[in-house]
Amino acid sequence: MFERSRRGFLVVFSAPSGAGKSTIVREVLRRRPVPGMGLSVSATTRPKRPGEVEGRDYYFLSEEEFRERMGRGEFVEWAKVHGHLYGTPKKAVEEALEEGKVLLLEIDVQGARQVRRTFPDSVLVFVAPPSLEVLEERLRARGRDPEEEVRRRLEAAPRELSEAGSYNYIVVNGDLEEAVRAVEAILIAEYHRARRFKGVSMR
Amino acid sequence: MFERSRRGFLVVFSAPSGAGKSTIVREVLRRRPVPGMGLSVSATTRPKRPGEVEGRDYYFLSEEEFRERMGRGEFVEWAKVHGHLYGTPKKAVEEALEEGKVLLLEIDVQGARQVRRTFPDSVLVFVAPPSLEVLEERLRARGRDPEEEVRRRLEAAPRELSEAGSYNYIVVNGDLEEAVRAVEAILIAEYHRARRFKGVSMR
Repeated sequence: MFERSRRGFLVVFSAPSGAGKSTIVREVLRRRPVPGMGLSVSATTRPKRPGEVEGRDYYFLSEEEFRERMGRGEFVEWAKVHGHLYGTPKKAVEEALEEGKVLLLEIDVQGARQVRRTFPDSVLVFVAPPSLEVLEERLRARGRDPEEEVRRRLEAAPRELSEAGSYNYIVVNGDLEEAVRAVEAILIAEYHRARRFKGVSMR
Repeated sequence: MFERSRRGFLVVFSAPSGAGKSTIVREVLRRRPVPGMGLSVSATTRPKRPGEVEGRDYYFLSEEEFRERMGRGEFVEWAKVHGHLYGTPKKAVEEALEEGKVLLLEIDVQGARQVRRTFPDSVLVFVAPPSLEVLEERLRARGRDPEEEVRRRLEAAPRELSEAGSYNYIVVNGDLEEAVRAVEAILIAEYHRARRFKGVSMR
């Protein structure tokens, strides 16, 4: 009776570095709370980290290649974060939405704003640490970044956190399991939004 | 860091009679997916059904009493449904919201519109049957209403269903467990809405 719209929607995740965003997104993707979930793969000029796979984690581009594609308007959004360029390929997102995908996208706060401008139907989720102290602990504990990078990320956090109010949802990641369940609930709820249905058709 | 607003919010459920709304709401109340859940108790002039309890299911009023309270503006909304008056006591709702309650409210489509006018922050959930045939089966199977009443309810259904588009969420109740989980997810998601937080406070 109620027919679902064929078009999917974007779920954008932003967080200060170290809040646990990627861990949450990875786990939610594994659990698949709604049908047709996928991960939007960004392009970046930042060096590949151990364990990362081209085309799965990122499209790793040289700065020259990245800027060429930028010039051709191939990115929904792009931003310089901690000295590296990141961009969301427009064509891939459009195709996924047309296929009805629920597409998860991890980007920074500047990018989220641009995505919402292009895809107003997007759902914006802000992942926050329970406190700045916990954020610092986590950044140091993962031991991935040099001290200078850790400091740069910590300095950026307050500005990023101040943007949370412009998101649709805020998930405070104190307990990982709780945060994952909250995001699962957000996806299921958004899947039941009245605007995702074509309207009433009586038969 | 992110402080939750002290004020609760209303979750309004509407459905054509027989869609399973009350069963879903009762089960969700039992599972308590979010803290501070409560049920808003309506006033009505319709006769008490077997098993119903005054003050728990409804405040059962005579038509005279109901109209007196209406005249004093004591209802957020009131409506005549299938020949009986129903109303939501304003004071009780206000008090519950101030206490931080997540207040579930079962009302008809006319009432939902009035509630949203008074409490714009309300979440509106429409519960739909999978088809009109299933609705008819369910109304007859519960064997509660005389034939005339069943017909009146079936005749009202298409008009009620046509209002679903103005709700925030649509839950099609084909499988009860699935519908209950969808409503649980909606409550958890709404609990994480950015607007339910006071904003960012850095410490």
